[in-house]
Amino acid sequence: MSNNGYKTEVDIIRLREGERGREKDEVVTESPLTVFLNEKEFVTLLCSPQKMDYLAVGFLRSEGLISKASEIEELRVDEDEGMVFVNTSGEVDLAEKLYGKRTITSGCGKGTVFFSVLDSLQSEPVTSDLKIEAQTLLAQINDLQQKSQLFKATGGVHSAALADSEQIIVHSEDIGRHNAIDKIIGETVLKEMFLEDKILLSSGRLSSEIVIKGAKLRVPFVVSRAAPTSLSIELAEKMGITLVGFARGKRLNIYAHDHRII
Amino acid sequence: MSNNGYKTEVDIIRLREGERGREKDEVVTESPLTVFLNEKEFVTLLCSPQKMDYLAVGFLRSEGLISKASEIEELRVDEDEGMVFVNTSGEVDLAEKLYGKRTITSGCGKGTVFFSVLDSLQSEPVTSDLKIEAQTLLAQINDLQQKSQLFKATGGVHSAALADSEQIIVHSEDIGRHNAIDKIIGETVLKEMFLEDKILLSSGRLSSEIVIKGAKLRVPFVVSRAAPTSLSIELAEKMGITLVGFARGKRLNIYAHDHRII
Repeated sequence: MSNNGYKTEVDIIRLREGERGREKDEVVTESPLTVFLNEKEFVTLLCSPQKMDYLAVGFLRSEGLISKASEIEELRVDEDEGMVFVNTSGEVDLAEKLYGKRTITSGCGKGTVFFSVLDSLQSEPVTSDLKIEAQTLLAQINDLQQKSQLFKATGGVHSAALADSEQIIVHSEDIGRHNAIDKIIGETVLKEMFLEDKILLSSGRLSSEIVIKGAKLRVPFVVSRAAPTSLSIELAEKMGITLVGFARGKRLNIYAHDHRII
Repeated sequence: MSNNGYKTEVDIIRLREGERGREKDEVVTESPLTVFLNEKEFVTLLCSPQKMDYLAVGFLRSEGLISKASEIEELRVDEDEGMVFVNTSGEVDLAEKLYGKRTITSGCGKGTVFFSVLDSLQSEPVTSDLKIEAQTLLAQINDLQQKSQLFKATGGVHSAALADSEQIIVHSEDIGRHNAIDKIIGETVLKEMFLEDKILLSSGRLSSEIVIKGAKLRVPFVVSRAAPTSLSIELAEKMGITLVGFARGKRLNIYAHDHRII
């Protein structure tokens, strides 16, 4: 096994039409990344070992542990060991946060869970009056696919991107659908980007967690080539997010807030 | 939005070749499932709302909180509210387990993380001398795809199955790759099935977590139509698991322990 970053070369046995042969092949690299928050070990993520600083910051932002770059006093990456150290200015009550993470409901069933997720966003619906042509979204999704070199080589990763009304401005790839988006989120936090006029693009399925990430960023658009779920549609409706799925070739489906697409 | 279980009917706007039309469409249902362990709220999973009892038990088994059916004194499902109550005979130290969950490394970097994952399996490599014809695996993967009715209708789910040397014996579908396998695990726990001569099939990518689930079950085969990662191959090698990816049509790739495939 030899590892050159994104990809790892491996020896495999390939069976094809009854023929058995030993070959070299490339698979996507998966590595553990351990995030330390204020000198305490916080979590180990399994990820593609690139943009580790963005992933760590994006993960902490998604978990609600940090909200902006100015809260970060120190950010140190040990690429070889797969460790990122984040030190923040304020105290973070880990016990409370971790408890919150595991139990997002107060125990009264679906309705409560659902609203507790919404509550946790602590935000009004996204009200951006940005409008985009369907043609532009299709071109961006096509562009996202073109950029995904790693997928072409290994068949094993997801990609995510942030676009403005013209083109993709931030792009990432990871073995995890959530990690790919968290890398985008981390980059936007560190670069202090304004997101309320941006489009979040994903190669993966649009589950509720993806829409929640979009809502936390306050982006008005979440777009994918893949399918949405019932809960992601429900959340997008409530959070004022334009949700687009199955964006492929010359067609797309709009599941919520279609008024932003012209 | 009207929900008939697996699928939810929604109103969408479909854009096709510049034409804009309002249509009915079906998307996969995503619901929160809250698991209570010994009367304490433990976790909320986002899932396809079927086989909730299997999912809850499989999740607890995967997390190492229960290991066999005899430990479960009571299992109660409230389907309407999306809640499963599991009461066990022994005391479970939640705080310790949760802490363990978030921090799988002792902080010395990759090597340690990796071996700590292996340690947590607390098991010798799988030594089953089961041998299977490649043709049989391909037929089973094909069968798994045939069974995945929900995917065909919605494009939004993963499926998993357990097979013996002849055919699929347990099958499940879920919006989550991990949930689909945990449903299988829960069913095998409750039915007290012997797994050391079984094959775990997944429609999804073979990341390390999937191989770890297989290793915990002690199945000798983990097979998918999709791609593996470097870490899943490394784990499969160490754990004695035959790892097969890209099993499609008349071909497949063997990434570890090919001696079991004839």
